Amino acid sequence: MGEFELIRQFFTRPTRGAVLGVGDDCALLQSAPGMQMAISTDMLVSGRHFFADTNPQALGHKCLAVNLSDLAACGARPLAFTLALALPDADEAWLAPFSQGLLALADAHGCELIGGDTTRGPLNICITVFGEVPAQGSRTGAVTGALLRSGAHAGDDIYVSGTLGDAALALRALQGELLLPPEVLAVARNRLERPEPRVALGLALRGVASACADVSDGLLGDLGHILERCGLGAEVQTDRALALLAARAQCAGGEAQFDRQYGYSTVQQCVLAGGDDYELVFCAPPAQRAAVAQASARSATPVTRIGSLQAAPGLRLVDGLGRAVAPKLASFDHFSAPSEGRL
Amino acid sequence: MGEFELIRQFFTRPTRGAVLGVGDDCALLQSAPGMQMAISTDMLVSGRHFFADTNPQALGHKCLAVNLSDLAACGARPLAFTLALALPDADEAWLAPFSQGLLALADAHGCELIGGDTTRGPLNICITVFGEVPAQGSRTGAVTGALLRSGAHAGDDIYVSGTLGDAALALRALQGELLLPPEVLAVARNRLERPEPRVALGLALRGVASACADVSDGLLGDLGHILERCGLGAEVQTDRALALLAARAQCAGGEAQFDRQYGYSTVQQCVLAGGDDYELVFCAPPAQRAAVAQASARSATPVTRIGSLQAAPGLRLVDGLGRAVAPKLASFDHFSAPSEGRL
Repeated sequence: MGEFELIRQFFTRPTRGAVLGVGDDCALLQSAPGMQMAISTDMLVSGRHFFADTNPQALGHKCLAVNLSDLAACGARPLAFTLALALPDADEAWLAPFSQGLLALADAHGCELIGGDTTRGPLNICITVFGEVPAQGSRTGAVTGALLRSGAHAGDDIYVSGTLGDAALALRALQGELLLPPEVLAVARNRLERPEPRVALGLALRGVASACADVSDGLLGDLGHILERCGLGAEVQTDRALALLAARAQCAGGEAQFDRQYGYSTVQQCVLAGGDDYELVFCAPPAQRAAVAQASARSATPVTRIGSLQAAPGLRLVDGLGRAVAPKLASFDHFSAPSEGRL
Repeated sequence: MGEFELIRQFFTRPTRGAVLGVGDDCALLQSAPGMQMAISTDMLVSGRHFFADTNPQALGHKCLAVNLSDLAACGARPLAFTLALALPDADEAWLAPFSQGLLALADAHGCELIGGDTTRGPLNICITVFGEVPAQGSRTGAVTGALLRSGAHAGDDIYVSGTLGDAALALRALQGELLLPPEVLAVARNRLERPEPRVALGLALRGVASACADVSDGLLGDLGHILERCGLGAEVQTDRALALLAARAQCAGGEAQFDRQYGYSTVQQCVLAGGDDYELVFCAPPAQRAAVAQASARSATPVTRIGSLQAAPGLRLVDGLGRAVAPKLASFDHFSAPSEGRL
């Protein structure tokens, strides 16, 4: 058996929902009546998006998770994905756990592998994911029931799901920039290596959220995408956001102790501009607060209200008393111009 | 403007057929009623699928062409594609012609760029393409109107479109393995660098061909995929196939002169196992010969009948008198185990 036959063996499974899966020139998917296909693609490169020695099972999980997170941001139900894989060599000891991590997450979300391409080359993993959303939105004249980055209005609340900044904190620790206690590092590292895409929350927010994006490049950057598409500004209560750094909230000595030890600017940088969170940042009118709480409960996903949209352009960070906060963020001035990005 | 903003500028265009194109977490596509989505993905790696110094305009053309060829093999009408691009740097002098070549072919086929991902890394181009096929086939109980690798029967004719082997001939010349006259090299090189996907033929063969695949890994290898999926064998008239090497057919001194100069085994190797042809190999019952001729005429694509399917497994190469031919092909024994492949 050739080495790429081996790869095929790791990734070929019976077709479930697709009309045709792995094994022909194309895969075939059929949308249910009244549904649209949501599509996203992400390419992960060794040494840039992950360390070359990353646990391959975690890597398999993560490279699908970041794609599912895009579906979550659109309120799409995952259906299927394709996998293109460039490998320096076909190493069974790497492929077996990689495929396990990948397919376990796929199974958890009912998202089947329907095709792909394998080649020799510098390690590169490119996944394209397909989900479905209703073709009709709840708003009059809407051409889609998907959650979009556009559509929110001034006065809408801004929410973020889960926790923020722990992945960035783990990255700094793994790069030797700071030293975390082992138990803190373990939790933060798990967030970096095994993000859980907020698919259930995205589905629950259909018809509730007025705009949504996933937090992959950092909270302020991704909120910035919403502001740009909506033509609005925002006020964000920094304290509420910073409280979402799990490592800080759980620090035995309290938040003040954590800030003294690692620096308040590190906390700000990780939470507001860290990236790799794969949470959802979304907006909803104040009249929908009960509906947001229901969506949070139904999806068993905590959400925190961190601010509101405003007509005046720009992003204002304020403290609990509404006073302006000037964060020290390396990337803050450039949050709308990330060094790489989505088309 | 950041360098990846530059990339975005080269690739972002107004949305036409898609519900939502570039610029959100997901793109949105809606199938017409009664249609299915055909999906294929291909990853092209520098130094493996193309020379690092390949003309970027030709490369842009080719990386979409190889994907459209998969749609052609399914009889799918191109709709849209996503592009994931890893680049060592964002070089405008490379990006401008690359995007021109890519988008010119996309426009020619009404196939719009609806999303993607850009990152820094070793040059890697991953395209996922979407087309549509009728959900109902002409055969009773068919779950798709797509052309598949499966479905043909013993006695069906085997056809191949266009010309074969010139891309492989050009590759050998560019690698210094043989010397071609400049005018011959120019024609062959054009086939290597600017393949024209047989989309129109694929569409015309809906309801006519009993099985179809595109010739990307070499005629015998790709015909082998059909045989495997159909559980059949085949007899191929080698002379008819070898006559499809354009450089040989057009040789001023005649085919015999060409064979003397470059070696008959080179001719065999290029035509039967060369790869990079992006023609279609397909089957149809003898009763459909007139319909195949019509499909060929309607799509302005020459097709040649090169053999027939047989119940006995295996692939038999015969000469014009039906006598067995034993080709000297490096990859012949392994044609069903290519060194890399499609999931």
